[in-house]
Amino acid sequence: MAAQPVWSVDPRTGKPREQVAVEATAEEIDRAVRAAAATREALADRTARAALLRTAADLLDEAGPHVIEAADAETALGPVRLTGELARTTAQLRSFADVVDEGSFLDIRIDLPDPATTPPRPDLRRWKIPLGVVAVYAASNFPLAFSVPGGDTASALAAGCPVVIKAHPDHPATSELCASVLRRAAVKAGLPEDVVVLVHGFDAGVELVRHPLVAAAGFTGSVQGGRALFDAAAARPVPIPFHGELGSLNPVVITEAAAEERAEEIGAGLAGSVTMGQGQFCTKPGFVLAPAGEAGDRFVASLTEAIGAVEPGVMLDRRMRGNFLTGTYELAESEGVTAPVQPGPAGPSTVRAGFLTFDAELLLERHGKGYHGAFVSEYFGPVTLVVRYASRDEITAVLALLPGNLTATLQMADEDPEAVSLLAELTPLAGRVLVNGWPTGVAVAGAQHHGGPYPATTSTFTSVGATAIERWLRPVTYQSTPQHLLPPELRDGNPLGLPRR
Amino acid sequence: MAAQPVWSVDPRTGKPREQVAVEATAEEIDRAVRAAAATREALADRTARAALLRTAADLLDEAGPHVIEAADAETALGPVRLTGELARTTAQLRSFADVVDEGSFLDIRIDLPDPATTPPRPDLRRWKIPLGVVAVYAASNFPLAFSVPGGDTASALAAGCPVVIKAHPDHPATSELCASVLRRAAVKAGLPEDVVVLVHGFDAGVELVRHPLVAAAGFTGSVQGGRALFDAAAARPVPIPFHGELGSLNPVVITEAAAEERAEEIGAGLAGSVTMGQGQFCTKPGFVLAPAGEAGDRFVASLTEAIGAVEPGVMLDRRMRGNFLTGTYELAESEGVTAPVQPGPAGPSTVRAGFLTFDAELLLERHGKGYHGAFVSEYFGPVTLVVRYASRDEITAVLALLPGNLTATLQMADEDPEAVSLLAELTPLAGRVLVNGWPTGVAVAGAQHHGGPYPATTSTFTSVGATAIERWLRPVTYQSTPQHLLPPELRDGNPLGLPRR
Repeated sequence: MAAQPVWSVDPRTGKPREQVAVEATAEEIDRAVRAAAATREALADRTARAALLRTAADLLDEAGPHVIEAADAETALGPVRLTGELARTTAQLRSFADVVDEGSFLDIRIDLPDPATTPPRPDLRRWKIPLGVVAVYAASNFPLAFSVPGGDTASALAAGCPVVIKAHPDHPATSELCASVLRRAAVKAGLPEDVVVLVHGFDAGVELVRHPLVAAAGFTGSVQGGRALFDAAAARPVPIPFHGELGSLNPVVITEAAAEERAEEIGAGLAGSVTMGQGQFCTKPGFVLAPAGEAGDRFVASLTEAIGAVEPGVMLDRRMRGNFLTGTYELAESEGVTAPVQPGPAGPSTVRAGFLTFDAELLLERHGKGYHGAFVSEYFGPVTLVVRYASRDEITAVLALLPGNLTATLQMADEDPEAVSLLAELTPLAGRVLVNGWPTGVAVAGAQHHGGPYPATTSTFTSVGATAIERWLRPVTYQSTPQHLLPPELRDGNPLGLPRR
Repeated sequence: MAAQPVWSVDPRTGKPREQVAVEATAEEIDRAVRAAAATREALADRTARAALLRTAADLLDEAGPHVIEAADAETALGPVRLTGELARTTAQLRSFADVVDEGSFLDIRIDLPDPATTPPRPDLRRWKIPLGVVAVYAASNFPLAFSVPGGDTASALAAGCPVVIKAHPDHPATSELCASVLRRAAVKAGLPEDVVVLVHGFDAGVELVRHPLVAAAGFTGSVQGGRALFDAAAARPVPIPFHGELGSLNPVVITEAAAEERAEEIGAGLAGSVTMGQGQFCTKPGFVLAPAGEAGDRFVASLTEAIGAVEPGVMLDRRMRGNFLTGTYELAESEGVTAPVQPGPAGPSTVRAGFLTFDAELLLERHGKGYHGAFVSEYFGPVTLVVRYASRDEITAVLALLPGNLTATLQMADEDPEAVSLLAELTPLAGRVLVNGWPTGVAVAGAQHHGGPYPATTSTFTSVGATAIERWLRPVTYQSTPQHLLPPELRDGNPLGLPRR
């Protein structure tokens, strides 16, 4: 079979720009993984790892204008957003360098011998070691921060794991550029360039997760694609951890009292959050419970005005644009669904934002008949579903139908009789619960959690923040091992001055 | 279909003692899980949870003679070992009560708002919440410490998760007795008795892991059974974490220099570790690399003498006894395998310990032909495989064929030229690496790790020690949530005095 070409495509025109690479064959995947695996020993050097991460950040900053231009040409996200995303990406790389230097991720615990315990306690020294080669699946919607130089790559390298990255087909040229920067940084830091290897192709991605030398995987993308890879990871002779972020409705509940108090403010705020980045954020609020009646009508009117005023924008690719248009049209045509602002095309490339609305009763009735799926689905793009509830009980009944989420939001009034019980109902649904805020814009902080019940994520770990490194490590305990055979990190007297327990 | 009876069987005679229960139907599993799930709110009270764990330990101590008698009648493990196991079990329950009181397992992290960061940081407060109902699959070989009142149950209850326990068919009466004690303890602690529910039956176990309200599972047992349940957990519409301990060869490498220095001591020590508890420990050293030549011959002679002198013993059940006898006979009959001490029957119920030996070259040759499985398999019972190597390279080649393990042991001389490189080769194979010790007898300590690469365990978590609680929790972050709506654990001023970051 001839090599399948990989094209960079301009989403503003839908036209191919240039051929960037070819899809990797099974043989090439094998070579890529073996090349990465051969760098494990070199990556065991923590000083070199920290240098790699800092150098990568510096070189990315240097190449900034080129990187942003390449990413904008392939994603149409615009230089402002991409400048911010690059800053976030390099900050993330530097912060993982600090994590490596600080050393508490090694989770060192030492128990000296105690013959008095039952059974007698020998000398035990535990730390965490890297799992091995990590497969990283890049996201469509963050060509930098959740792609080649993104959080999965940075945290895996910080842990000491080489990475083989499967590029997202929406930005192959950006991926090649970033991979070359990372590989250059490796050489500058005294490491082999194959600590980072880039591959392209859908089938290549499946081969990758099945390779015996791949020890774990990180993924950001759709439920369908992520679940297929999760299943392949679980079906291996030796199953591996698969940390995937798959999909999220990010439900919002607007109480009756909140709508009475702030219908207009909530409508405008929601419109901003739904349309930010063309509605292509994983934390976009895609499912909103709003009261029936007059206050709810005012909210809908305000949302109509605000979302109707949003300028049309370009989506990441033509397939997504097609899915967005088809999916929202089909739902809008269902009995009982209305479209105060119908999402639609605006010229050959761009789309108009909008929202659809239906009664909670209709959703519950459809659920009873077993065909409510389209009413609780994620529609990628600038659209949200507004579900009008007639009673407090309907909120509970609708929330019970929702899959797991990254976020859940409560819009409440100052003194709100429903706040306590609604917060208790929203907490099991999500990894982050917000009050009177909007879920887009994920702050990087120690108390942040970016994850949630399936399908939001396939594991209980976070993919954002310092603890994301824990995904790529496993504990090993040395028992009664002579000092000179122990890693220096575990020796008496703490020669490297690391945090230990 | 008529209800399938569950019999308690005397392993010393192979005769049924009494009918203890019936196997649960799918409907009964549904009822059991729903009953357990209904206790989640009550279990949210941490004070009650700590009281439950301590009361359970007290009541088990009180019932000690009955519990030990019941367990001995079903397992033949003997009162000395079972008295020790009960002490370990109650100590474990009390130590998890301390973990609950101390509170750092909640992993509370608070970030106050900072408008200066990009994006601006809102008020973020993170802690960990229980996952939901945990399915616990009891082990055959530890009727107490890894069964109904064992580590999985104790850590899940400590986390705030109700448990539905699938009893092991080898000790249904002990399981019923222990479950009744745990349920009594719940009532005494002011909790519903259904925080612990016991079920029986193989099919029931499969139903259990598939139940939509089951949120995670803990398992200790065989590769075959554990993998089937792991696969079922991964294939659910909503996959759940499956923390299984499945199987382990626990390889031992004896260097040439070690054999020269301590052949007799190593032979005697190995015999003790292999035959302890009739070779039914998960950490039994089942695969030993020993040098060819004179020093290795002395080791084999010493092992022959020591293992030949071990008294016959009763295995946990007739099926295991049958597998042990058949498996070791079949391997002993393979070309190139010798049995210096052939394991075998010793009367209608008991078995004699033994060991088999073959050359590394034979194993490598068989691997080349693709049928070496029986040479790198776990044989449950008092037997080990001694593989004679003719060169340093053969050690490396054989280690490369081994699956993941709980432990790996190096027997080395004081000044041993091979120690550094062998330790580096053993570390990727196991969760605990020992030098000049024996892996049976797992000390409970902060630096302990009981787990390892698949199939030793199916996740990177430990099932022994305080951190085992982490398996049953997930993080949730509250963003910009008013004080009165936050759990007291996350409020300003730290009203409960918990460890926070």
